[in-house]
Amino acid sequence: MNEERSTDNVLAQLRDLAATGEWSKSVALLTALHPADLAEVALDLDAAELRDLLHHLPTDVTAHALVFLDEDGLAAVAAAVDTSALLAILNEVPDEIATDVLQQLAPERQRDVLAALDREEHIAALLEYPDESAGGIMRSGFVSLNETTPVERAIETLRRLRPPSDRAYYLYTVDDEGRLGGVVSVRDLIVASPGTPLAEIAERDVHAVGVDLDQEEVARTLQRYNLLAIPVVDEDGRLVGATTADDVIDVLAEEATEDMYRMVGLDEDERVFSPVRTSVRRRLPWMLVNLVWAFGAAAIVSLFDGTLARFTLLAALMPVVAGQGGNAGAQTATIAVRSIALGDLDVRDVFRATRKEIVVGVANGVAIGIVAGAAVYAWDRNVALSMVLAAALAGSIALATLLGVIIPLGLKWRGVDPALAANIFVTGATDILSFVLFLGLAALVIERIA
Amino acid sequence: MNEERSTDNVLAQLRDLAATGEWSKSVALLTALHPADLAEVALDLDAAELRDLLHHLPTDVTAHALVFLDEDGLAAVAAAVDTSALLAILNEVPDEIATDVLQQLAPERQRDVLAALDREEHIAALLEYPDESAGGIMRSGFVSLNETTPVERAIETLRRLRPPSDRAYYLYTVDDEGRLGGVVSVRDLIVASPGTPLAEIAERDVHAVGVDLDQEEVARTLQRYNLLAIPVVDEDGRLVGATTADDVIDVLAEEATEDMYRMVGLDEDERVFSPVRTSVRRRLPWMLVNLVWAFGAAAIVSLFDGTLARFTLLAALMPVVAGQGGNAGAQTATIAVRSIALGDLDVRDVFRATRKEIVVGVANGVAIGIVAGAAVYAWDRNVALSMVLAAALAGSIALATLLGVIIPLGLKWRGVDPALAANIFVTGATDILSFVLFLGLAALVIERIA
Repeated sequence: MNEERSTDNVLAQLRDLAATGEWSKSVALLTALHPADLAEVALDLDAAELRDLLHHLPTDVTAHALVFLDEDGLAAVAAAVDTSALLAILNEVPDEIATDVLQQLAPERQRDVLAALDREEHIAALLEYPDESAGGIMRSGFVSLNETTPVERAIETLRRLRPPSDRAYYLYTVDDEGRLGGVVSVRDLIVASPGTPLAEIAERDVHAVGVDLDQEEVARTLQRYNLLAIPVVDEDGRLVGATTADDVIDVLAEEATEDMYRMVGLDEDERVFSPVRTSVRRRLPWMLVNLVWAFGAAAIVSLFDGTLARFTLLAALMPVVAGQGGNAGAQTATIAVRSIALGDLDVRDVFRATRKEIVVGVANGVAIGIVAGAAVYAWDRNVALSMVLAAALAGSIALATLLGVIIPLGLKWRGVDPALAANIFVTGATDILSFVLFLGLAALVIERIA
Repeated sequence: MNEERSTDNVLAQLRDLAATGEWSKSVALLTALHPADLAEVALDLDAAELRDLLHHLPTDVTAHALVFLDEDGLAAVAAAVDTSALLAILNEVPDEIATDVLQQLAPERQRDVLAALDREEHIAALLEYPDESAGGIMRSGFVSLNETTPVERAIETLRRLRPPSDRAYYLYTVDDEGRLGGVVSVRDLIVASPGTPLAEIAERDVHAVGVDLDQEEVARTLQRYNLLAIPVVDEDGRLVGATTADDVIDVLAEEATEDMYRMVGLDEDERVFSPVRTSVRRRLPWMLVNLVWAFGAAAIVSLFDGTLARFTLLAALMPVVAGQGGNAGAQTATIAVRSIALGDLDVRDVFRATRKEIVVGVANGVAIGIVAGAAVYAWDRNVALSMVLAAALAGSIALATLLGVIIPLGLKWRGVDPALAANIFVTGATDILSFVLFLGLAALVIERIA
């Protein structure tokens, strides 16, 4: 919190200095910040301010901040500088950051910038990996050595390479074909006696992930085994990169946001301060889907207009049945979606999960049905109405609970993201079922109710 | 996925072996697993199976698996062994794991076990820290050295201590009073020339967190600066521990689950395969809260029974207004809750966020109002009804959007978790407002509608 407040102050100072054109003071102010804080400040600037600032900021300062920016931030920086300035910045960042920046460029500019980079080939190869795969999130500036290397030569190599300190937590050993053999922690390296070949101190039971694996699976593997880094191999087992826990943290945060947003029909890229146009454009489509469900429910209700005209209290109780069913469905869908994401629930568990949710749904449904039935009896002294409401609630809650587990598992089984608008489908279907049950039962016994 | 499938197979084999009493084969099977996989298998056993297994499994094998268990898992293991076996296991685990296990014990057993441990004092100190604070999640087995130590003596110390390889990623320097001075990565250590005092190669600009800081803030600091470890200091700046990125990953996953669950009124400890009793007991209270809202809505609707009796199509359209408002409110509440959790939204942003959401809400409301109004006109050729529905939808969506941002920020301002049943409050309040608007407007112009 302190850091955020202080970046707010920096932003205010920066704008004052920009107004009077004192750029050398602005640069001094920003250069003193941690690159992560500088990135935070840059994100709060508008496009014109960012362009002015980047024009004055030294290339290496900008380069250091890039690693702390998300995709939108990288796109904003790339848009704020001309191609020669961008090249100067990219020449000072690691390959995987350069790749992330290039992914934000329009095809033509991407081609031009790529061609002018001195590491063109390697970055072109990285650009081939899907954004959300192990290849898309891996870093390439890690250390790998042949497994026959003696420890003192390995130490010598690290001295010479001076790898950035946030990379060299593990040293991977490879055979003559470049295939991953084991992992040597730098700690093991310095505690081993000189002369020992790396193969002897390497941990052989290494958890590696394939370059095509989805980033969420990469994150889960690292999380499962409490690792701080995980090597990435190609289909022949050759080491091509590594991913560290700090990147996995970003992946997991992104995936959690995605699940929460998709459940209610939101685009995962929406932020609280996204422009109004963007927010409207992104939320409206799912609201239209929801509108179709709502009119479906309306059509069902209109079938019972005779019943409703005879006894309008039924209309008043409709929201009770639909609201309770919707809430029960949303609860179960949330558990199902999150459990799938955490790896606790899979399609093969469908019968076990369904069996459990049927029992929970019936138990909750009966309990709520009794309470609500009693409340309506107190309100209207109408035994038949109380019983209809209780039965409809019990049925609606039980069905909603069942839908809440079946719909996400069904989506997962069909290869669709289980979070995709789960709440909208579950509550939409529940509404319709609730009204059929409640008004249908009421119509059957309308002579006793009205 | 592969690992999970294989633990399923192990579980089946284990049960076959247990049936024939072949414990030595069971032990061989489990000892060959990674401790994380062993922990996974243990979690799938019932209490009696777990007791039998732990009786046969060597103490050190059990001890290694403990680090991969969550609180429920630790409690199950502690309950499955007698006190002398538990002591033997605890003597082989790091202090912070022993502390986590002790936290799962009943007060009397906790006291007995603690008194019998040889590291009693240190663990008693760790037990004092709140579970969800920096002190509660930190590890104590890291390396700290006086800043005057020359690098070769530091290397010698690491050789002698042989710290576990998942801890010694950073080496912290302290002054004579034990106050944190800087951080030396093991990589920096081996690339420095002999004779250099640690103070000279230490990075002084260290991000440390206070021992009382909430675990979510600890996680956000580590995440913000892309760190793999962060030191924890007491109020005098003395180094008391450190937290690594793998633990922060667990904290972030836990907090994301908590937010998702609380939004729909679920207990954060509920799992997809929690016992039915537990699931019912945990979900029922919020469903009762929701029932109060639902009856509030029913009471509002019943005020309009004269209007509804004259024109029952109004009853059919009620779910359209409530459903759209509820969806808009849930979308905004989800964005607000997640943005607060990620540190993108704070109470001081209330005016900026509210202003934005009003504009988005009005724009979406008008768009949906026009579409739905046109649909009703096509259905019933009733201009007045179309206009009432359009106006009610626009108003309901705009209000719901506003509530979706104000309720979470209000809860945060009052020091309550902003996720706490956010959806239940937002959709409950939206239902009531929707019916007042829709039926109220309809009642005003009922002569033109019916």
